[in-house]
Amino acid sequence: MREEATAFVPGHITGFFSAHPDDDPTKAGSRGAGLALTDGVSVTVEPAEESVVVLDGEPIEIEPVSTVLSTLNATARVEADSDLPLGAGFGVSGAIALGTALATNRVFGRALSENELVTIAHGAEVQAGTGLGDVVAQAQGGIPIRLEPGGPYENRMDAIPARARIEYVSFGELSTEAVLSGETDRLTVAGKRALSQVVGQPTLRSFMHASRRFAREAELLTEQVGTAIDDVAAEDGEASMAMLGETVFALGTGLSDAGYEPAVCTTHPAGAVLE
Amino acid sequence: MREEATAFVPGHITGFFSAHPDDDPTKAGSRGAGLALTDGVSVTVEPAEESVVVLDGEPIEIEPVSTVLSTLNATARVEADSDLPLGAGFGVSGAIALGTALATNRVFGRALSENELVTIAHGAEVQAGTGLGDVVAQAQGGIPIRLEPGGPYENRMDAIPARARIEYVSFGELSTEAVLSGETDRLTVAGKRALSQVVGQPTLRSFMHASRRFAREAELLTEQVGTAIDDVAAEDGEASMAMLGETVFALGTGLSDAGYEPAVCTTHPAGAVLE
Repeated sequence: MREEATAFVPGHITGFFSAHPDDDPTKAGSRGAGLALTDGVSVTVEPAEESVVVLDGEPIEIEPVSTVLSTLNATARVEADSDLPLGAGFGVSGAIALGTALATNRVFGRALSENELVTIAHGAEVQAGTGLGDVVAQAQGGIPIRLEPGGPYENRMDAIPARARIEYVSFGELSTEAVLSGETDRLTVAGKRALSQVVGQPTLRSFMHASRRFAREAELLTEQVGTAIDDVAAEDGEASMAMLGETVFALGTGLSDAGYEPAVCTTHPAGAVLE
Repeated sequence: MREEATAFVPGHITGFFSAHPDDDPTKAGSRGAGLALTDGVSVTVEPAEESVVVLDGEPIEIEPVSTVLSTLNATARVEADSDLPLGAGFGVSGAIALGTALATNRVFGRALSENELVTIAHGAEVQAGTGLGDVVAQAQGGIPIRLEPGGPYENRMDAIPARARIEYVSFGELSTEAVLSGETDRLTVAGKRALSQVVGQPTLRSFMHASRRFAREAELLTEQVGTAIDDVAAEDGEASMAMLGETVFALGTGLSDAGYEPAVCTTHPAGAVLE
């Protein structure tokens, strides 16, 4: 057994999505599109007497991470260092689950394939209700389009062939669980329309337009987020809302041009990687 | 129209494969596994009066690249700078074809998706007979396992979740076209056996074992390559032969421990990327 292993998992902002529940968590998930980010989560796993998860120095319970560890039959200390806030639409819980799967497989010599590990992390996230599509997007990197829902044995993926500088500002949390457990019909209709727009024109610009329209149609825009998007548009910039968090993201210098003080990163060409 | 765009495409060493011809080039291809490399090809495309391809400063005809340009209805100068030799088992022709597809799409504003561009490059490579599986592996990065043949709409991919330092020495060229147009029954049987070994145990070590056994069973080992593999084994290292080239690759410091003076790189976590 190795002493420890570390995986880096990119953050992931979903621009739009539709929810696709299924009794089988490897088939459940979402369609949609988003941005994998160079800001992400570094996850280190080492064998321990008792399983514990530490996020930025604080012990924390993250259900999908516990599920991943028990699925891989591992008792370990998981230490996650995140560039991104939890619960704000950056896929942090999915990143820790996926990073735990990759690093645990290595430390404990489980000899599973990438698809198997992604399936385990995706299923754990779906079961916990903390996310539907971040894990498969974070496994791929870039600007993933999720054409069909589910884990890697079930889904179909494509991507927008581009790279971009991304700015973001986070005003606070939104509960993915609360939104997804509510009425999602309107959201699903809006998400499908957005997807067909991006499939027809797979460019960054079309992704931003589709994302903004989705946020409006699905009635997910908060006041603060709506104002920031308008402020960016007033400077001819492109911004939208991260699903699901009270977070605005913009291409290029959109937010700083509008007078905000955003965090800055770029899209991350690779998916999750062992270090 | 942009002035120019550049894409970097990782090199790709195939460890073992089986050939799967089909009248439809988007369905034809290979099963197998290999390593995407940080040594690769940088491809810059700019609009021109007449299409021309330049590799490391020398004008050259590369059939799949011409096919990609004509499929995208583009007349362009393609300038490729390669860390790797052509015809020696590194997927250089596939890299130039894929890089041309990505960069041309951007420069000429063709608004195609990643899957569409990879399909075009894969089909062009298969039609030319210069490769069967490099393009889809180079689009993915890492240590790709090609479970089912064909372009991204047809194939199934997995990966070995690992990273490695790679050393390689190239003694010369082998013609992919000549090997693939010959008797491939033995090769196909050996390739399928190797794939099932790696699917059962998706680790780097198992990949190297399966690759060595494949090279022997498919009777593709040249004398010089066989000697180098034995030399590495004598120092407890892991080496095998790049398919298809007179090239030996080793994990870690395998070749330098055995007294060779290899080129050194690592596996490339990301697939082809626009710069």
